[in-house]
Amino acid sequence: MNLILLESGEVNEAGVAVLDDHRAAHIRDVLRVKKEDTIRIGLVNGPLGTARIQDESSRQVVLKCTLGKSRPPKPKIDLLLALPRPKVLKRLWAPLASMGVGRIMLTNAWKVERNYFDTHVLQPDFFRPLLLEGLQQARDTWLPEVTIHRQLKILVEDQLDQLVSHRSRIMADPAAKIPIRSLGASFRKGRLLLAVGPEGGWTKFERDLLKSHGFVPVGMGPRILRTDIACIALLALAGDLLNRHSRHS
Amino acid sequence: MNLILLESGEVNEAGVAVLDDHRAAHIRDVLRVKKEDTIRIGLVNGPLGTARIQDESSRQVVLKCTLGKSRPPKPKIDLLLALPRPKVLKRLWAPLASMGVGRIMLTNAWKVERNYFDTHVLQPDFFRPLLLEGLQQARDTWLPEVTIHRQLKILVEDQLDQLVSHRSRIMADPAAKIPIRSLGASFRKGRLLLAVGPEGGWTKFERDLLKSHGFVPVGMGPRILRTDIACIALLALAGDLLNRHSRHS
Repeated sequence: MNLILLESGEVNEAGVAVLDDHRAAHIRDVLRVKKEDTIRIGLVNGPLGTARIQDESSRQVVLKCTLGKSRPPKPKIDLLLALPRPKVLKRLWAPLASMGVGRIMLTNAWKVERNYFDTHVLQPDFFRPLLLEGLQQARDTWLPEVTIHRQLKILVEDQLDQLVSHRSRIMADPAAKIPIRSLGASFRKGRLLLAVGPEGGWTKFERDLLKSHGFVPVGMGPRILRTDIACIALLALAGDLLNRHSRHS
Repeated sequence: MNLILLESGEVNEAGVAVLDDHRAAHIRDVLRVKKEDTIRIGLVNGPLGTARIQDESSRQVVLKCTLGKSRPPKPKIDLLLALPRPKVLKRLWAPLASMGVGRIMLTNAWKVERNYFDTHVLQPDFFRPLLLEGLQQARDTWLPEVTIHRQLKILVEDQLDQLVSHRSRIMADPAAKIPIRSLGASFRKGRLLLAVGPEGGWTKFERDLLKSHGFVPVGMGPRILRTDIACIALLALAGDLLNRHSRHS
């Protein structure tokens, strides 16, 4: 962990937090800090900061926290992802948070098996610690918001505009010739919504549905990547597109 | 698998191959093809092609192969990677092959623990099937060449020029301000060698060693990514740089 994340309720009015879970073990056994040392901390969905180790024992670590005034910038990319196999989704939670995603919408699609929705990997008790692990790796505090959608059509037609306000919507499509980098300047401003289909791809109906709601197909060349690897590669390329704008503006 | 890979020795002079291993099971149970159906095949380090199912039973699948004349283009990126933890390396083999890497040089570094070199994950019997899995996912035939180096200094000073001939060498460096996309036009031609350090980074000595041998530091912004995720993101961005040249040339 390159950062220890605290929930806002864990820090009292005097700025003191007492940890006795795996974070305490990490501070003691991996960071190997001692009394009076300083570590990097952050509040979930809040500012970054530092903490001085006031006390540490085999049972607990007592932190005196100093938090910054402002929060880090919110990730500018949101993800609409056809629900992957539980095994793939399980290993994707932490990387998604570490790459920086504002919202993760997991949706059904024709080629998503119905029983994928029954997995414990979709339970907040399971995935929240993995998202926090990714944030602590990347030194971010913005916990992705996760929603689960059983019908792509209802999501796209009725819910999407309320969940996310984006001028820029793109969909990964192996058949598309346009790479992300070639998208026009309008795509480099504001937030970006990226749709990634299931192993086996969207159906024609689904592609048409997404296109008719403003999703522009983009490609990454002829290689077919596993969903988790494709997500990471696409987030890297989309992030690069948005950074290019910030850098030049 | 989006492709079934065969070793050249498996196809006889009449173009017939008999499979009785996990590939036969995959053809039967996942692809669910029948006699006379056609599937995509490739020869390891050779051409792509198709095969007609001549016969299939619970024991074996008999393929009549038709191979193309030429091989797919060789991946233009090579990777010099500080040996990651065995658990991380284990899950990295298939994605590296699926992203397309010509050569993988795994090296020691100050922050690499010595016992990482003792893992079975570094045995060809272990990693070759995972590399093939990645190629079959991506529909490629180029098996990355893997070499293991116990001393970074000897690798960089004495061996690198013989192993790989690149004008373009870059090193991922969290402190670097230059993103991959901003590299000059000379980096967009020919082969590219990408160096990725250990968790915790290269030491100053190692960074200076690499820089003095032509590695240009490049960054991906302030997020600190796990080695495997960083590799995938960097390969996506480096591939995008090289494709940009091909597209415009």
